[in-house]
This record gives sequence, C-alpha cells and structure tokens, in this order.
Amino acid sequence: MSWKVTNNERSQDQLLVNESLFALGNGFLGVRGNVEEGYGEGMISIRGTYINAYHDETPIEYGEKLHAFPETQQKLVNGIDAQTIYISVNGERFSMSAGTIHSFERTLHMDKGQLIRNVDWESPSGIRMKLMFSRFVSMTTKELFMQQVEIEPEEEADIVITAEVNGSVTNFSDPGDPRVASGHAERLHVTDCRAEGRSLLVTDETYETKLEMHVHSMSEVSAPADRTTEIKDGRAAEHYSLKTGERIVFTRWNVFTDTYRHGESLQERAENIIRKCGSFDEEAAKQQAYLTRFWEEAGLKIEGDDSLQQGLRFHLYHLLQSAGKDGVSNIPAKGLSGEGYEGHYFWDTEIYMLPFFQMTQPEIALQLIKYRYSLLGAAKDRAREVGHEKGALFPWRTITGGECSAFFPAGTAQYHISADIAYSFIQYYLVTGDISFVDEYMLEVLTEVSRLWMDMGHYKGGTFRIDDVTGPDEYTCIVNNNYYTNVMARHSLQWAVKSWELIGGDAATAWKEKLQLEEGELAAWQEAADRMYLPYNEEHGIHAQDDTFLQKKVWDLENTPDEKFPLLLNYHPLTLYRYQVCKQADTVLGHFLLEEGVDEEVMRRSYDYYEKVTTHDSSLSYCIFSMMAARLGDTEKAYDYFIKTARLDIDNTHKNTKDGLHLANMGGTWLALVYGFAGLRVDENGLRFRPVLPKAWESMAFRIRYQGRFLEVELGQDQITYRLLDGEDLSIDHFETSVTVQAGKEVHASYQT
Amino acid sequence: MSWKVTNNERSQDQLLVNESLFALGNGFLGVRGNVEEGYGEGMISIRGTYINAYHDETPIEYGEKLHAFPETQQKLVNGIDAQTIYISVNGERFSMSAGTIHSFERTLHMDKGQLIRNVDWESPSGIRMKLMFSRFVSMTTKELFMQQVEIEPEEEADIVITAEVNGSVTNFSDPGDPRVASGHAERLHVTDCRAEGRSLLVTDETYETKLEMHVHSMSEVSAPADRTTEIKDGRAAEHYSLKTGERIVFTRWNVFTDTYRHGESLQERAENIIRKCGSFDEEAAKQQAYLTRFWEEAGLKIEGDDSLQQGLRFHLYHLLQSAGKDGVSNIPAKGLSGEGYEGHYFWDTEIYMLPFFQMTQPEIALQLIKYRYSLLGAAKDRAREVGHEKGALFPWRTITGGECSAFFPAGTAQYHISADIAYSFIQYYLVTGDISFVDEYMLEVLTEVSRLWMDMGHYKGGTFRIDDVTGPDEYTCIVNNNYYTNVMARHSLQWAVKSWELIGGDAATAWKEKLQLEEGELAAWQEAADRMYLPYNEEHGIHAQDDTFLQKKVWDLENTPDEKFPLLLNYHPLTLYRYQVCKQADTVLGHFLLEEGVDEEVMRRSYDYYEKVTTHDSSLSYCIFSMMAARLGDTEKAYDYFIKTARLDIDNTHKNTKDGLHLANMGGTWLALVYGFAGLRVDENGLRFRPVLPKAWESMAFRIRYQGRFLEVELGQDQITYRLLDGEDLSIDHFETSVTVQAGKEVHASYQT
Repeated sequence: MSWKVTNNERSQDQLLVNESLFALGNGFLGVRGNVEEGYGEGMISIRGTYINAYHDETPIEYGEKLHAFPETQQKLVNGIDAQTIYISVNGERFSMSAGTIHSFERTLHMDKGQLIRNVDWESPSGIRMKLMFSRFVSMTTKELFMQQVEIEPEEEADIVITAEVNGSVTNFSDPGDPRVASGHAERLHVTDCRAEGRSLLVTDETYETKLEMHVHSMSEVSAPADRTTEIKDGRAAEHYSLKTGERIVFTRWNVFTDTYRHGESLQERAENIIRKCGSFDEEAAKQQAYLTRFWEEAGLKIEGDDSLQQGLRFHLYHLLQSAGKDGVSNIPAKGLSGEGYEGHYFWDTEIYMLPFFQMTQPEIALQLIKYRYSLLGAAKDRAREVGHEKGALFPWRTITGGECSAFFPAGTAQYHISADIAYSFIQYYLVTGDISFVDEYMLEVLTEVSRLWMDMGHYKGGTFRIDDVTGPDEYTCIVNNNYYTNVMARHSLQWAVKSWELIGGDAATAWKEKLQLEEGELAAWQEAADRMYLPYNEEHGIHAQDDTFLQKKVWDLENTPDEKFPLLLNYHPLTLYRYQVCKQADTVLGHFLLEEGVDEEVMRRSYDYYEKVTTHDSSLSYCIFSMMAARLGDTEKAYDYFIKTARLDIDNTHKNTKDGLHLANMGGTWLALVYGFAGLRVDENGLRFRPVLPKAWESMAFRIRYQGRFLEVELGQDQITYRLLDGEDLSIDHFETSVTVQAGKEVHASYQT
Repeated sequence: MSWKVTNNERSQDQLLVNESLFALGNGFLGVRGNVEEGYGEGMISIRGTYINAYHDETPIEYGEKLHAFPETQQKLVNGIDAQTIYISVNGERFSMSAGTIHSFERTLHMDKGQLIRNVDWESPSGIRMKLMFSRFVSMTTKELFMQQVEIEPEEEADIVITAEVNGSVTNFSDPGDPRVASGHAERLHVTDCRAEGRSLLVTDETYETKLEMHVHSMSEVSAPADRTTEIKDGRAAEHYSLKTGERIVFTRWNVFTDTYRHGESLQERAENIIRKCGSFDEEAAKQQAYLTRFWEEAGLKIEGDDSLQQGLRFHLYHLLQSAGKDGVSNIPAKGLSGEGYEGHYFWDTEIYMLPFFQMTQPEIALQLIKYRYSLLGAAKDRAREVGHEKGALFPWRTITGGECSAFFPAGTAQYHISADIAYSFIQYYLVTGDISFVDEYMLEVLTEVSRLWMDMGHYKGGTFRIDDVTGPDEYTCIVNNNYYTNVMARHSLQWAVKSWELIGGDAATAWKEKLQLEEGELAAWQEAADRMYLPYNEEHGIHAQDDTFLQKKVWDLENTPDEKFPLLLNYHPLTLYRYQVCKQADTVLGHFLLEEGVDEEVMRRSYDYYEKVTTHDSSLSYCIFSMMAARLGDTEKAYDYFIKTARLDIDNTHKNTKDGLHLANMGGTWLALVYGFAGLRVDENGLRFRPVLPKAWESMAFRIRYQGRFLEVELGQDQITYRLLDGEDLSIDHFETSVTVQAGKEVHASYQT
C-alpha cells in the first residue's frame, strides 16, 4: 500500500482537501485533483490548473503607503481548464452526487505517477456503469496533461462523452467568505477559442502582464462515435455519441504552452508537441520509467511503519511535482497544488526543499539555483529602492523578482532571505564540488549579498551589527542583531571571501572589473565576519534570538486556550511582538544550519529554552526541532516532532490544505530523516553523519549524491551501513571517526552509545 | 498691520495655500478660503466646507491584513457648499481670470474675524465695477456662515447676482495626481434640495454613517430686484436681477446643522437659528466683540517685530477657529482648514494645543478634555481587541473613538497617546485646581490607562519595562522601553494613585465599586512607577531614546542631499528605523514635559545629542527644541528654532499648507513663547517661570489664567513684570525664588545672569 494514497471521503471539506492531495504536476504544469465532471449543485470546488510562474499583476492597496512599498503583487493565475469530461448515459449525466454509487475508490499511484478513480455507478433511472478515470501530468513531456476514461455500461445504452476546454476561468473566490478577496479573481480573458480538425484550441491572455496561455486538446474514443463540436462563452467542447454495451476507452491529450517562457507562436509549439505524443499507454510507460528512476535515486525506505513510508513517499512525490525545472521558475510555497500564497517563492525553497534536490536530483537543484541567480538584477534594484547604496536585497516573496510582500515587518524585513540564498549556493558548491559553479553563479551572488551586509551593518563597540531586521520567527519583528540573521550573514561574508580565493587568477581579474570590486572590499567582508556580533545571554547560557528578545515578558502558553492558536489569527502583531513567543524555530534553526563554533551545551540549552516559547504555528518549525533533538541525542523527541510533520497535509492538521500543500514541510520531512536521524552535515571537510534510529523503526535508508558519488545509507537496528553504489572512494565522518567506502562495497558502523 | 494677513498672489500654487490660510471657522463649522465665484477653467481649487467630526466611514485596504487591524477609517466629509456667489454685469460674469483687475486685495482681519476681498474689475467688454466680498463664520452662532458683497458699478448696468447652495459635493481628489485616492472622494449624496419662500434648503446624507447635514440659506439685496430660483443636480440657486449704477449690497445667511450632534429635525433647528440672526452688521459686531475678548484674554504682545506679532496672532486665531467646543469634537490635525489627515484627532491636541486653551480659554479646554473622556469606552474595547486583558488603549487617530490608523508601527504602536491624554488631564487639574474634575473625569481615565501599563509592562531585573511601542519619533518604530513612553507612563501611574488619594472618602468607595478596583492595584501602580525603567546611557551621559537606539548607526545628515528631505518620502521605513535619525523631538520632549528628577546636565547633553540626529521632518519638532534651548539658557538658539515655527504656514515651508494648516505647530508657537521664553511650568508647587528674552525683541507679554487668577506676564528688556489682573494673591516661583503678586498690582523681577 505504501505506493498508493487513497481517499474515498466525499464530504465538502475533504473534497477540497483531496483536490490538493491529489494534485498532479511536473514543476511546469499543475492540475488540482478536481473530478472531471464537477461536483453537485452548490458545492465548492477550487478548480485549478496552473503553469508555474504564469502570473498576472494586481495592485496592492495600503491604508497608508510609505516609500518603496511595492505597488503591485504578482499572482499565480488559474489557467485554462482542460479537466472537464462529462459522460451521459441515455441522457443522464454522470455525477457523484446523483444516482447510486455502488463502489468508489480514488487513488494516487506514486510509482507510476497516475491518479485513478474507479466508480461503479447507477444512474437515477437505474442504468449501471463502471467508470475508471486515469490522469497524469507528464514528467517527460512537461506540457502534457493526459486523461483516460474507461466506460463499461452494464447494458447497451446511448453514451455521450463531452470533453471541454474552458478559457473562461478565474482564480478562486468564495462568495460566502468575504475574507477571500474576489476583486482580483478574474485575471485573464479568452483571446481565441475554436475547434479545428480533431483539435480544440483555446488561448487566454492575462490582463496586466499580457501573458498568453494556450491549450491544444485532442481526444479519441476506442469505438466508432459521432463527433460534434461546440464553441460558446470561451469554452470549446466536443461531443462523442455512440450506442454500446461494451467497455469503451476515451483518451485525451491536453498540451499547455505559454508566452512566459517562449516568445514564439505558442499555438505552433503546442501543435508540434501534441503531434509527437504517443498513446496513453506509451506516455504512461515513460511516466512510470521516470518515476522508477526517481524512486531509485531517492531510495527512501522505512521499515516498521508502512503508513509513514507512504507519507514520506507522498512528500517526495509532491516535491518532485512542484519544482520548476527550467531556470525561470521555482517551487511555490504550495507547489502547483493550490492558490495559497499566490504561487510565490519564499526562502522555503532554499532552506527546506533545496537540500532534497541537491542531494538526490542535482540537475533540478541547479535549475532552482539558476532561477535565483536570474533575480540578482532585480535584487540589486530593490536594494537601491529601499535605500541601500550597494548590494542585493532579495524579495521575501516573488515570482519574477519584484517584492510581492505587502506587510514589510514580516516580509521585506526578513533580510535573512539574502543570506539563505547565499547559503544554498554555498551548499550546492559543497555538494557538487563544482568550481565552475562558483565562477558562473556563486561569486557574483555572494559578492552582492556581502555588499548588502556592509551597507546595512555597522560597527559598535568593536563588533559588527545588523539592526532592524526580522528573523525567521514572525512573532518577533523588526529587531536588532537577530542571531539567525547575523550568523547566516557571517557565513555569506566568509564564503564571499573564499569564493574570490577559489576562482583566483584570470577569472578573478575579469570579475573584479565586472563587479567593480574595490580595494579592501574583501578585507572588509572578512573583518565584518570575524567581528560579527552574535548576541549571547550569560544568564541562560544561550544565544539570544536578538538584542532584546530575552528581556521581554514570556507568553503564558500553558494557559492559552487551544482556540487561540495559531496566535496570529487571534492577537494583534504588537501583542505578539511584546512577548517571548515564537511562531517557529529561529535561533534553533541557526544552530542547525551553522553549528561550527557553537558549543554543544549552548545548542542544547538553546533548544530547551526556545522550545518552551515556540508555538510551531508555522509549518516550517517541527522539522527543525526534530533535527535538533536528534542532533542533541534525544531521538524519541526527534521522532515525536518528526511524526507531526509526516502527515501534516494528509491529515490536514493545519486546516488549510485545501489552499494547497505545505511544500516546505514536505521538504522538512526529508531533512528530518537525512539531516535529523542520519545526522548528515555537509561542509568543507566533506560529509558527516551522526545517525540515530527511533525505536519505532526497524530500519531507515536513503540515497544521496555527493561529488560524483551515489551513496546509500541504511540505519539498521544494530548498525549503520554505508554503501557506495557508484563513484570514487569516499571518506566520510561517522560521528568523530573517518570511514572510507569503495565503489560497489559497503562498510558498517555502530551507533554511538 | 499686525491684525491683518494679506495675500494678493494669484498663482495656482498660492491660491491653494491661501484657501488654507484664509479658512474661516469656529470649531464647529469650517469654510476654506475659496473665492465665491471660483477660479478660471482648468484651475484647481480644494473647495471645502466642513463640520467638525461630520464624517463617513471608508474601508481600509490592506495587502496583508492581520488580526485587529482596523477595517474602516473615518473621514471628515466635505459638506454642502454655500460659498458660491456669481455676479454678472450686462451678461458678463465676474471672474478674477477674465477682464482686467485694476486693483485687488484680500485680507484676513483677525481683530474682527472677517475675510475681506476688494476687487476693482473691468469686464472683457469694458464695464468697470468695484466689488467687496466680506465673510465670516460666526463665533457666537456656531451654525452661521455670513457673506456680504458690495457691488458698485461705474455706470448703470444690468446686474445679476446668483447665490447657490450645492449639495453635490465630494472630497478633494486630484485627477492629475494618482496618489490622491479618488475612490473614496464621494461620501455623501443629496436627499433634499428645494427653494421655499425666501430660503434655499439642501440636505445631504453620508453613505455609510448616514449622517445628515443641512443648509438653510437666505439672502437679500439692498435695492429692488427680481428674484427667481432654480433647482438642478443637487444645487439650489437664486438669481437677483436689477439695473443700477449705484452701490448695492448683497447679504447672505447660511445656517448649517447636522445629525452627528442632534437627532431632532435638523431642518427645523436651522430655521429656528436663521430666524434669530441679525443683520450682517449686527452679527459682525458680535463677532468683533467675541474676538476683542479673546485677544484680551490671550494678551499676546511682541514689540520689536511686527511680522512676528502678526504671525503669532495668526496662529492663535486659527487655534480658536479650529477647536471643537461641544465635547463631541476636538481639534483636527489640520483644523477645519483642509482635508489632510482626514479630519482626525491625534495627540497633537493634548501635547501641543491644549496648553494654550487651558491657560487662556479654560472652558474650551474642558470641552476638549470631555471629548477624550467620551472615548474611554471605545479605548477599553480597543485594548481588548488588540489583546490586553485590562485597561484602555486610546486610538492613535480617530474621530469618534475607533482606531483609524492603517499603519500600526507609526499608529497604534504609539501607546504614548494614552499617557499623553492622562498628562493633559493632570495638567488641567493642576491649572484649575478643580477637585471635582478629578472625581468626574480624571480618576477613571488614569485608572484605565494605568491598567494598560500594568497589562503590557513587566518586571525584569527589578525594573518595570514597557516593550514594543513607538515613541513620538516615527523614524524609530517598535522599540522597547522608549524613554518618553516610560517616563510618561510613570507620571500617569503616579497620578492615578494620587487621584484616588485626592478624592478619598465616599467618592472613592463609589468609584472602587464602579471600576472594580482590586486589592493591591494602587500599590502595584505605585511600585511600577517607582521601579519604572528609564534607559540611561553611561557613555553619553544621556537617557537613551529606547533600549537600542544608541547602538544603531548614526545617519549622515550632513551628506544627505536637500531633496531627500523629508526622509520618509525618500527611504523605506526599514532604512529609517535602522539608523539613529529622528523625525522629531522624542526624549527631548520627555524632558520638556517631565523634568522632575532629571539632572539639568543630563537634559543638556540629551538636547545636544538628539539635536544632531533630528531632521525636524515633523512640524511638531521645532517648538520643542526651541523650548528646551530656552530652558537650558541658549536663548538665541531658542529664537532660531522659534522663528521656524512662527511662519511655517504663512510661508508654506512644509510645502503642504494647501492640504490644511499645521495646527499643532501653531499651538507649539504659543508654547515656545510661554513655556519656552517665559519658561512656565505648572506642577503641584504651582507656577514657575524662568524667563529669557531674545535679543531681537524689545518686549514680549502674554496673559494666562491659573486657579481663578488672571495674570499678565511681561518680559521687558531689563526686567520681568508679573501683573495680577484678577483673583487672589498668588505666589509664583521666579527661577528659584518665590514672588507674590496681589490683585491689581504688579511685581518686577530680574533675569538670571
């Protein structure tokens, strides 16, 4: 069962959740798990089809607008809907809300990458038929969304199959919920809608960005049928009519193209692509082959808990489905599974999701990193606009590089995102060892990020300080010397200097010219790094989250009623800011990412202290606490936190899965396994593991890539096995000792007692 | 000349400024200084008539709305326009933009409270006539706006006089300036518009608040004339036609009523009022009598600088015109002279304007204070909404008590407004010595304000701390232990305890019941006051503006180009917050208001330090620096700062006088004279003066009321004269010595050398 996720519940709430859980995608195209024929009258569906980064712009309204507040926001646009298939039998249209459902099952098959729905249905007037709906968004032809319906009437009947392409779509707005702004729901309009030959062709264009999206849809029925077409209100439909008592198969190819990526004729592109598509079975076979390779590369295995194994596969599956793979898109906070967070990219990618790709799918990781690199110009512009004379300030949330955050205390003020991006570049370099990457991407980004710190930081009492930022914890905004920010800034400054040393020679000379590196800049970065102020509190023996955090009143979490969580929905931000109360890991995250030079006892006290004041109201929190618990040897607590991440969406514990999946939490689950239980860290010394295995599991295994090697790590009950599947001999640190593995061989190591 | 303000410039920019400078009002009704006939084609006029507190509600839009962000904003509504009078001669309509202006003068007469415009005009076809437009908003019948036009044609001609009442009005929006939101400009509509008998009657109603405003207008011509009326598009007009070569006089009474104050028929009220009105001369005589008394009571005199004397009178005149005198309205930040700040009331009243009224017009001061008292319930509700279990949180900006600030870091976060209000109550008590005021108003307000501090503050290291507020300086938001806030909070806590002691006995017992005073509450307030943390920096020997202000980078003001000021229009708030740079006096203001227990050398160093980092981008700043310079003995610097306040609007130095006058600055000018140069302080020991006289002046004199006395203070070149005009013997502190004055007598004292 662990390759399948099944959910047959049909309550209104669960239907919306299932639309997210059963969303299909490939990083370019995403189709929510809506049902082909729609729900019954009065039911709500968030019917969505998204092309990653395909967006419109909407004005941001402010009651009081100050200088350099962004004027517009980008918004992922719900695009042309090609999901719809209606099936009528003797004039009665199939619907899950009408007639009798004799049996029903809806299953996501993660091994073959298909969503399949089986229904044994009896129409209101008593005609029975079996239906099987299959669909997938192709991993091998990114523009392709395929559907198939097998129809098996119990007796001969008049069957009409209608396939529709609907260009008259809007983003979701709930007329019953005034909090969902409906003003900006309609973001595009139909510019072309026709039937031509065997094809349905619909083109839409967004209102402000003038981006076009096009669908070329074709279909066929396995038995002779009359075909008619109909064009109306921005919808193109085809109807197939036949009389049969046999099983018939309806197959449909939908190809999506857009002008965000390609300037040339998007109709022509779509036509060329659809012509090359194979049959459903052929395309499905390619899909399965792709996924087989993916699962082999990830190699994730947990023995002793099938439901957990299933949940973890589900997370990796959605990570794969959500990641932009073309260098001009990234991973939206909700993947391509919903409209929450407007399809924006956050630091979630770099800190929570990129490690998975980096360690298992480095070519996707590089595309994600190239995307960030492409924003550098915009980040430099943004820094100027805000008031910095030098450097690059990456936007807190964006699609194409403009700041889309409308609330700067928990948006633009999170300057750490620039350090997070630098961190991810450094990690990518450490994992790949690719010096050309430093030359082509990393040096420039780290240089501009370092310049930002130099522009905004200053010396006081011999230490370098960074004032007026917000760290990861959004319940404490606009502070001075946020530990996380400062330690991450130090890291980017150190590595900026190292980058210049690494490339050296002619390359350095060319870059010096291009980046107008001034005399003494490198020395200044090194000095700022060396003298970086990291607030430390003697009384508690911990690093303070910021200059004043530990002086504030402690929030009485114990006596806060359950219904007051998440706190941000129940208290004014000023009230939250006034207390020691954290939405998520902040200093603890800093210790996880950069433990060098931090005493283990400090990390332990820090963990204990911040755990008591953290609500985990953010889905980015549990995994960090899990990893740090593992790091500090408290395996069972690590397990408890881990379990809360493992089924967050499947069990809808945050109550908003309908708006889309929590992709960062999904990445965090993988982190918790690999960086938490296996204790992986990657630094200049190579790989280090500090494995621990929770009691609940018989074993846990995963695979990673590192500098040309392909390594499998298995945590058994009694020992750890390092198995080098491919590549040159590799020395790794197992706790404090060095272990060398050779290709095709394995070594065993023990747990620390 | 010093009773007159004349400005004959007719450029587009100055016309808009003059509309503010020549605005007339009485605290209830305000009419901008528009010209009766309007300007020429294509020229912009902010044509405005306002009833204080007459408002509508508009939604506040947020890109990201968090808990307890206000959903709507109140907005002073531009009301029915009764200014319009057209005069035609032989079919040619008089306009300042047509024909020839042979002479022109426009003068505000501050002694008689009238605005008079004289024009010697020749029509395009060569007919010449002299016109004199007079108008006033009555100080004695608050609903009455009177107009008179004297028309003197050089030769016999057909004259048509048209008087119009226009109900189809909107708030100002500039189609050429997208920054002025036009979406919310139209806030009311005409519900009744007719001519009846000799009257024009127009009634409007606001869209959301459903508040009605009504104008009853009547007029007469001194010579026989045909009268016709016309009703069209929400306008009621009357036309008087006659043929004459003589001087004729057109007189008009406009009476304004509203349902914000009175529920009963507003038409009937207006009719009753207009029936009781006398002739123009009779009403003008009452107006003059009122002003004569006002000027006597203020008794302001500066010898040696006529233009300054004029500027100061202009400020007091506008203060009088702007102050709500009915207990349900207050002083809008721009008075009733424009639409800037939406007609909202801020702390400007309590800290900058109330002292003038308290010391010279105590009955108006009491009305202003009663208004604040009336908001107590709303302030308690707001405190709960934000997350406080107890206490009252007064809104940063409001009309009827709801928070109207859409940007909380420089709005709601300015918790000091609650302390400012408490301070004003305490000052009022000190000036009047009225114990019944403590019982009726002060005890309750101070109790609820103290409860707010107890709820939000906490002990740390034995000191009581107040985190997460914004002080007066809006370039430094959301800080811990803002000195100003803490010292003001301490004052309100101390006086809350004193108030309970002052009323004592049965009154206290009743209040205990009513306010549910708990055992130990008073002791807790006293302890919090005693242990209030006031950040002090040893290195500089000054009080720090807040816990971290002095650790930040110092803004390089010297090398900031002129065009970058005011900084808030050129830098993102995060950039401003990051530096030691102040929009206005903050700690220095704290020292001015509460110097007890602060060493003079600390105040001096503080002044010197903060002066270097203050931009005075707020019009609330100069006067404070002026007063503190005087306090610290630097009379000439005090004078330099003072001069910048004295003509801020007349010279339009802040470039936004068109949006309305800077009332707080006007109050600050008086403060600078009386609390600055004369060095007045009022505390439990009575009055203290520390006079200094700038070299530029021969003498300066003013009058104040204090606990039943009427005192004149004259600063001559060689000596100071205290003259008790009325009341019982009074002992005052002159510097460190006590001086006693008797009624009808004067004493002389010397300057300190």
